[in-house]
Amino acid sequence: MSWKISSSHTDYPQILVDESIFFTGNGYLGVRGNFEEGLPSGQKSIRGTYINAFHDSVPIPYGERHVGFPDTQQKLLNIIDAQTIELFFGAERFSIAEGEILSFERHLHLDKGFSERIIEWRSPSGKQIKLNFKRLVSFIDQEVFIQRVEIDSSDYSGPIRIVSTVNGDVANFVDTSDPRVASGHAKLLHVTHAEQSDSISFVECETTNTKLKTACAAVYSLEVPYTRKDYPAATAIQSEFSFDFTGKASFEKKSVFVDTLRHGENLQTSAFERQNKLAGKNFQSFLQEQTAYLEDFWKLSDVVILGDEAIQEGIRFNLFSLLQSTGRDRFSNISAKGLSGEGYEGHYFWDTEIYMFPVFLMTQPEIAKRLLLYRYSILDDARNHAKEMGHRKGALYPWRTISGSECSSYYPSGSAQYHISADIAYSFIQYYLVTEDLKFFKDYGAEVLFETARLWLETGHFDGDLFKIDAVTGPDEYTCIVNNNYYTNVMAKHNLKWAVMFYQLLQKLAPERLTRLCEKIGLTSEEVASWQKAAEQMYLPYDPVRKLNPQDDTFLQKAVWDLATTPKEEFPLLLHYHPLKIYRYQVCKQADTVLAHFLLEDEQSLETIRNSYHYYEKVTTHDSSLSTCIFSIMASKLGYKDKAYQYFIETARLDLDNTHGNTKDGLHMANMGGTWLSIVFGFAGLRIKEEGISFAPLLPGKWEGYRFLLHYRGRRLQLEKMTEQTVIKLMEGDRLSIKVYDQPYQLEKETPIII
Amino acid sequence: MSWKISSSHTDYPQILVDESIFFTGNGYLGVRGNFEEGLPSGQKSIRGTYINAFHDSVPIPYGERHVGFPDTQQKLLNIIDAQTIELFFGAERFSIAEGEILSFERHLHLDKGFSERIIEWRSPSGKQIKLNFKRLVSFIDQEVFIQRVEIDSSDYSGPIRIVSTVNGDVANFVDTSDPRVASGHAKLLHVTHAEQSDSISFVECETTNTKLKTACAAVYSLEVPYTRKDYPAATAIQSEFSFDFTGKASFEKKSVFVDTLRHGENLQTSAFERQNKLAGKNFQSFLQEQTAYLEDFWKLSDVVILGDEAIQEGIRFNLFSLLQSTGRDRFSNISAKGLSGEGYEGHYFWDTEIYMFPVFLMTQPEIAKRLLLYRYSILDDARNHAKEMGHRKGALYPWRTISGSECSSYYPSGSAQYHISADIAYSFIQYYLVTEDLKFFKDYGAEVLFETARLWLETGHFDGDLFKIDAVTGPDEYTCIVNNNYYTNVMAKHNLKWAVMFYQLLQKLAPERLTRLCEKIGLTSEEVASWQKAAEQMYLPYDPVRKLNPQDDTFLQKAVWDLATTPKEEFPLLLHYHPLKIYRYQVCKQADTVLAHFLLEDEQSLETIRNSYHYYEKVTTHDSSLSTCIFSIMASKLGYKDKAYQYFIETARLDLDNTHGNTKDGLHMANMGGTWLSIVFGFAGLRIKEEGISFAPLLPGKWEGYRFLLHYRGRRLQLEKMTEQTVIKLMEGDRLSIKVYDQPYQLEKETPIII
Repeated sequence: MSWKISSSHTDYPQILVDESIFFTGNGYLGVRGNFEEGLPSGQKSIRGTYINAFHDSVPIPYGERHVGFPDTQQKLLNIIDAQTIELFFGAERFSIAEGEILSFERHLHLDKGFSERIIEWRSPSGKQIKLNFKRLVSFIDQEVFIQRVEIDSSDYSGPIRIVSTVNGDVANFVDTSDPRVASGHAKLLHVTHAEQSDSISFVECETTNTKLKTACAAVYSLEVPYTRKDYPAATAIQSEFSFDFTGKASFEKKSVFVDTLRHGENLQTSAFERQNKLAGKNFQSFLQEQTAYLEDFWKLSDVVILGDEAIQEGIRFNLFSLLQSTGRDRFSNISAKGLSGEGYEGHYFWDTEIYMFPVFLMTQPEIAKRLLLYRYSILDDARNHAKEMGHRKGALYPWRTISGSECSSYYPSGSAQYHISADIAYSFIQYYLVTEDLKFFKDYGAEVLFETARLWLETGHFDGDLFKIDAVTGPDEYTCIVNNNYYTNVMAKHNLKWAVMFYQLLQKLAPERLTRLCEKIGLTSEEVASWQKAAEQMYLPYDPVRKLNPQDDTFLQKAVWDLATTPKEEFPLLLHYHPLKIYRYQVCKQADTVLAHFLLEDEQSLETIRNSYHYYEKVTTHDSSLSTCIFSIMASKLGYKDKAYQYFIETARLDLDNTHGNTKDGLHMANMGGTWLSIVFGFAGLRIKEEGISFAPLLPGKWEGYRFLLHYRGRRLQLEKMTEQTVIKLMEGDRLSIKVYDQPYQLEKETPIII
Repeated sequence: MSWKISSSHTDYPQILVDESIFFTGNGYLGVRGNFEEGLPSGQKSIRGTYINAFHDSVPIPYGERHVGFPDTQQKLLNIIDAQTIELFFGAERFSIAEGEILSFERHLHLDKGFSERIIEWRSPSGKQIKLNFKRLVSFIDQEVFIQRVEIDSSDYSGPIRIVSTVNGDVANFVDTSDPRVASGHAKLLHVTHAEQSDSISFVECETTNTKLKTACAAVYSLEVPYTRKDYPAATAIQSEFSFDFTGKASFEKKSVFVDTLRHGENLQTSAFERQNKLAGKNFQSFLQEQTAYLEDFWKLSDVVILGDEAIQEGIRFNLFSLLQSTGRDRFSNISAKGLSGEGYEGHYFWDTEIYMFPVFLMTQPEIAKRLLLYRYSILDDARNHAKEMGHRKGALYPWRTISGSECSSYYPSGSAQYHISADIAYSFIQYYLVTEDLKFFKDYGAEVLFETARLWLETGHFDGDLFKIDAVTGPDEYTCIVNNNYYTNVMAKHNLKWAVMFYQLLQKLAPERLTRLCEKIGLTSEEVASWQKAAEQMYLPYDPVRKLNPQDDTFLQKAVWDLATTPKEEFPLLLHYHPLKIYRYQVCKQADTVLAHFLLEDEQSLETIRNSYHYYEKVTTHDSSLSTCIFSIMASKLGYKDKAYQYFIETARLDLDNTHGNTKDGLHMANMGGTWLSIVFGFAGLRIKEEGISFAPLLPGKWEGYRFLLHYRGRRLQLEKMTEQTVIKLMEGDRLSIKVYDQPYQLEKETPIII
């Protein structure tokens, strides 16, 4: 059960939700789980196929435009639709709206990497037919989306027509009422070429403004004798396969997607070569490779929950969805909805660094490294963005982007979130702590750390003995443009401190490399000294009466939003209240100070952390899906086992149960990473520090146990927490000093730590 | 000299500036001072005619749209162009770009209410001709714009053709680079009907969205025998007059403008009736009436400056421009640029109440009353706006509007400026103090005061013993969304206090009226008690170290913007820096706390006011034209005579000298009011309080003296300040107690106060 996500929904709006849940992807390509045969007309569907980072840019409209507002924003495009396969049994067209659905089930196989939809259908005239639609997006050949339709009937024999389409006439989904979904510019992709060339159906499209191109080449196979007719049109190619059905038949459609970001300018050649190379492979052979790939993946990444099947399902689904969505080249990253939908227009946010990167860092460090390389690749854009925002130097990473330029048109909860630069710096530092990859640091990390560090000196100012940062927005988007947001300040301090440390490290280990870098970016030792001073004198707001860290200078002085009497239907608040009304109150969309206490726990006493947790818990709506996992982690740290579990279960199945009501727009990728964080950093208490890693495992009352795997400095560890004991094993690599419940242990291959 | 504004500019871009300066208007109709014959092709002109409040609405675009953001905004439309009159001498067309301009002068006659343009021109073939273009927008017949062309030549006789146009194919001016100018939707007016009917050229247009209509009917007269041909086309009507010229000729074009807001649905009938009624009137008769009207106006409103001709010119020009721009019906008010241009899209702001209303209040109270009635007429819109901003009750006046709905698309320096409601309340209170018009208060004022007062309870909160107001923006637009803006809080306190006082007054004097009003708006005595409590406990930020009022809770903690090293070309800052960068610093666009100290001086000690003045003076850029007049007034109060004069001269000729560089977009109406305030409230030290009025006159060192007139409680006063003495005369009305330099005096008709 726990390797399979299943659904039997044929009702609205759950079909839209299942389109996201049953998406198939590989980090390059993503295909929503739409029905091959389409939906009854008039029924809403978000029919989508996406290539990571394949975008167009559109002008941002402003009623009143100010200096430094971005001109354009980027938009992940829905690309050529190769999903469509229609079936005609005699004159009757298969559709869930016609005849009778006798049974309907769909499954996403997390261990094998494909999805299937199995339907027993009685046609209007009474033909009884069993259909199985299978689909797979290959982890091995990233350009491949392959579908297989199996037809089975004991009471129908006669003519069948299969009509398959490769359609370039596609558009994006729009919704003008929700700021989280695009509100315009639906149709940006245009067909430049459509051709039936021998057996290959080929459609090529171009974007309106970026002039990126993408193409799809599809080939077919059918295991019975058939007649084929092709209908190439201006924007789509239909191929019709007619045959005499005698009880069983299967049909395969193998589509290859390419784009000019990765495959050069001649997409037709590129796609045809790929098709030719793959000529010998069918659904079965892709499935074999896929299964082997996933076996390797789960060997390193699986989390086992004993005694809670629903949660087991949730965590594996989340890890699998992350794997399906994570870009692995320098053009791409992980968008807020992965490759499962169009919400947030396919943009990359800080979500990657704070919520998803750690999962890969601790299980698949090679993928983690690629995520950092993406950030290095847009460093120049971050430098430009800093200039646009009025700074003379430094790098300010865009709050939301695809190819590197800022795409936020509402800066109070967009560009003003300067913390993203510190978040990215934090990830680079974490990567170093976990991998000790000094070469990577010399080549990429140092430059990112230095350029982000210098931004803080550009942004903040010394006020007497204190370094302060005004007019920025922290993670909590219900409180914007504030002075001395605790999260921002403490993360900036960390950024500055480590920039100095790496400067000193390179001085010692690679002085020439450092000199070259300093020359490149115009860095002087005086500037580094100012980083040190700013880090040391960084002002971290503290309230001596309540003994906690105020979210910012004035947060605690505002009125407290009366959450108790706010009707349920008025959440999330951002969809019901003007931002200014929300900003006027102590009310948080998400963890902010509490998140800072997780990321940098040594900056405050346990008492302050505890008081803060209690205070912010009362004023947080968790309207953001980034919130509850952090509260879960901190509840674990503070020993609130039940609370930790309660928050955790809100994260673990957020999309499977559509608890935020907007899974139709795509899966909440950060929350999916957050589930893993809640287990590994939360229940198991993992912390990664200069001096090494530590654990403080606890077991939620409802579980019999849990087990997961970790990578750390070339080693593989397994932690198993059962009711009676904790077992930490070194599966691979040299012995290691770790701490468990604050006690030092030596971990060796032969002798697991058993507590 | 001082009754005439003159220019001899035929150069760019001064021609654009003069288009604003030489506009003619009457509060209903405004016509920019464009050249009748047009400009050489390719030369930019903002050719404009406007009817106050005649607008269209357009959707506001948002890259990211949040709840409560206005859907549409309004836009004052450039309407039918009746200015065009072209002259052909033989085959030669008159234009400043052809032949040679021997002399060129234009004058705006402030005492007679018309403008003229006198040109001596030598045509390419050497004909020497003198032309005088006169124009007048009537204060008596508000629909009338009349032009007269006088042609005079001693060396040319022969054929002349005059081609006059009434053109409905017009558009608004756009500039995408300046947030203060519209960036789109230029073409919103469309011709619905154009007809030559007997001698009347008629063009009717309709707006795209509001479906308002306007029409122009023009008739001509020519004092020599002529042949006429009319060329009616779809969007314009041309009329050609040919005659044999023999040394002198004059031509008149009398245009009547009407619109469906004021003249019913049948505009053709309405316009034709008006033309028929005015058949006997020519330029000369309009001029006579106009001159008489202005004689009356200046008798009540003139300010005389002795010993400074340039300033005398400035102050009279400003008063005249205000008179030309002020709406006098329930649809209209005074837009930021009056009727002289399209800047700020013809919207009405708080400028009216704080900068312009006092001028009329103290000189033409009937016009002042009409301005308040406009605010009463949009009270329902203000109630709606409060709801949109998340409040259960109360009225929040829109930051910018024409017909009442909020038109601000950038709320941090728009809708967030809640103080506008208190500013409007302040004006109603001032009106009562000056007129003692209790009836007006019962009918209109009380309701406005109550509805604005209750908004503060909706916005602020009690924090212990203090009432605080968070997340609003004060007048200073370089510091947005702050807590406890001193200006807002002290003005809200005043609003609340007077709401309570009027409630009590009506309880005593008009209990039935009060009961009806309370029933209408659901007001209880408990709510009134809460106003009293909030007023008494209103938190007014005070810094005990610097002994001044901080602009808001955190203003003084920010870094100070380094104005000294900011290059001159980077002002105004808003055109060169991202708002967030500006918000991060102690830097003010305009007077904020200093303005509060002017409006409500009794709230603070003189020491606090003085310290505040000095502090804010150092951090204020005066990038807003609303700023220097207030600093001038407060410098006068504090005895800084030279400083007061220095600030004053920056206001007095701001448009005449185009010191802000954007007079082309229209005159700075609020600054024009501010000039008057700087003299009357500044140099002469007028204050209006419950206990009466007071003066503390001082004389700027460069002047020999000044003199002005005031209305107060049915009386007319004249104050004359000369080097050696101050003379205050009661010109009309009963005796009066006043204070001068803090000493009480009895003012009687027979015995002026001489100090």
